[in-house]
Amino acid sequence: MHRISFVNGEFVTHEKAFVHIDDRGFLFADAVYEVILYYKNRLIDFDLHIARLRKSLQLIKINNFDVSDAKIKEIILELFAQNNLNTGSIYLQITRGNSPRNLTLPKNIEPTFIATVSPVKSSLTEETLVSIKVMTDIDMRWSNCNIKSVGLLASLLAKQKAIDLGFSDTVMVRDGFITEGTFSNLFIVDQNSTLITRGLDNYILGGITRERLLKLAQLNNICVEEREFSVDELYNAREAFLTSSTIGIVPISSVNDKTIGDGQIGNIVTKLLKLYLDFISMD
Amino acid sequence: MHRISFVNGEFVTHEKAFVHIDDRGFLFADAVYEVILYYKNRLIDFDLHIARLRKSLQLIKINNFDVSDAKIKEIILELFAQNNLNTGSIYLQITRGNSPRNLTLPKNIEPTFIATVSPVKSSLTEETLVSIKVMTDIDMRWSNCNIKSVGLLASLLAKQKAIDLGFSDTVMVRDGFITEGTFSNLFIVDQNSTLITRGLDNYILGGITRERLLKLAQLNNICVEEREFSVDELYNAREAFLTSSTIGIVPISSVNDKTIGDGQIGNIVTKLLKLYLDFISMD
Repeated sequence: MHRISFVNGEFVTHEKAFVHIDDRGFLFADAVYEVILYYKNRLIDFDLHIARLRKSLQLIKINNFDVSDAKIKEIILELFAQNNLNTGSIYLQITRGNSPRNLTLPKNIEPTFIATVSPVKSSLTEETLVSIKVMTDIDMRWSNCNIKSVGLLASLLAKQKAIDLGFSDTVMVRDGFITEGTFSNLFIVDQNSTLITRGLDNYILGGITRERLLKLAQLNNICVEEREFSVDELYNAREAFLTSSTIGIVPISSVNDKTIGDGQIGNIVTKLLKLYLDFISMD
Repeated sequence: MHRISFVNGEFVTHEKAFVHIDDRGFLFADAVYEVILYYKNRLIDFDLHIARLRKSLQLIKINNFDVSDAKIKEIILELFAQNNLNTGSIYLQITRGNSPRNLTLPKNIEPTFIATVSPVKSSLTEETLVSIKVMTDIDMRWSNCNIKSVGLLASLLAKQKAIDLGFSDTVMVRDGFITEGTFSNLFIVDQNSTLITRGLDNYILGGITRERLLKLAQLNNICVEEREFSVDELYNAREAFLTSSTIGIVPISSVNDKTIGDGQIGNIVTKLLKLYLDFISMD
């Protein structure tokens, strides 16, 4: 069976999914994206993802992307069907469109819209948690991390550096405070069992899984704080974990080789995984 | 006549110059570029541009781009010939290559190499200076601006904001000091006729025209300082101007509506344009 992707209104075999070299996504990272989990034939938190996508588009002034929410959902479901996947992730990217390389933002060009699906391997499909070791590093990214832009080279280099040094990922630090993981948000649980994650600002992406877990925690009497926290608070946490739509929830066993809590997978993260699995199973 | 571009070893009509949606340049801005001036059948400072390109590739760990300098030059000259241009600019972009979307850096994939030529309109082709009004704004870019990556959305948004507010461009400010223009370096001339530009660090791109002008100034007894300078020093400058390979030299008449010097095109910038035009005519 051929893998099928979607490019500008057409379903095409993946090998033939091309964009022009004048596409501003290619020339300038003048583009935004979303990755949405499809879990046992359910598209998880579609409305939140699409709201974030439209916010990203607005922030970079792509004002003429006129595909409706319903049409986007139809395309996504059609892609999963054509690719015979009942669990996976959908990648959506919208660029400002094609035009000869121009340092101002051209108006009246048609945005490029591509979508492609992949299998997903994570705690969400295994339904079991495996912890990872991370390091910290200076956050080298731009100051608009709230925009889900495809300008991801800083994150890629940070993640690869961690892997090359024997860690699984990097947690980034700006002005002494944790921002987030390279492609995920970070939560800690302090010694009072309070769940803490950085509040929304322009230095982190407002993760959909982050938002969903905060809601589930509050509904289930887990005390929650959204605020900045330091590397020392991370070191002294009882639990720490990363979240994203595709990795789900990933516990951290150590940071810069300092053990977090007792190094075992904690109670709160275990409870949150259960709540989240229940949520995505009944969404 | 068809416009001809170069994609992965082949000269193709520009309309058919495509890359795959899995190209990491498109998905992640995992790519670097160069723009080189071709002036009256001369390729200007090719060696400096290629050295910078190879430095950018090294910094983002694309280690297997194996097209020689001589071969790159041959491709460029062939493109100008096929497009019947004797003055213009060449855009080169190298990406890590195609692979299914992967947050680690894949090894053993073939880099994508594209090149395309355009006409150029600037003081270099008109041989006369026209000044512009600029504004200042906070530098929102990442902390690796010394890498000429295609992650240019922050610069695009900054430039467009200036245009929307009635200016021609933005000069960016980080921690109280000027970094550079959105796609150019900034020079000022102080009241002692000293030419000042920020020294090389990770917050600016080391422009080739910047480097060439510094050399020409020193050879011609213009006193030069490479150091950080503040917005106030810019306001109080006798002259200010932007430089890049394609715009050449562009004088600034006002910053945030404060007139620079007497608002006229100054002696030093006029002298530098003459020196630079002599240089590119005899390169």
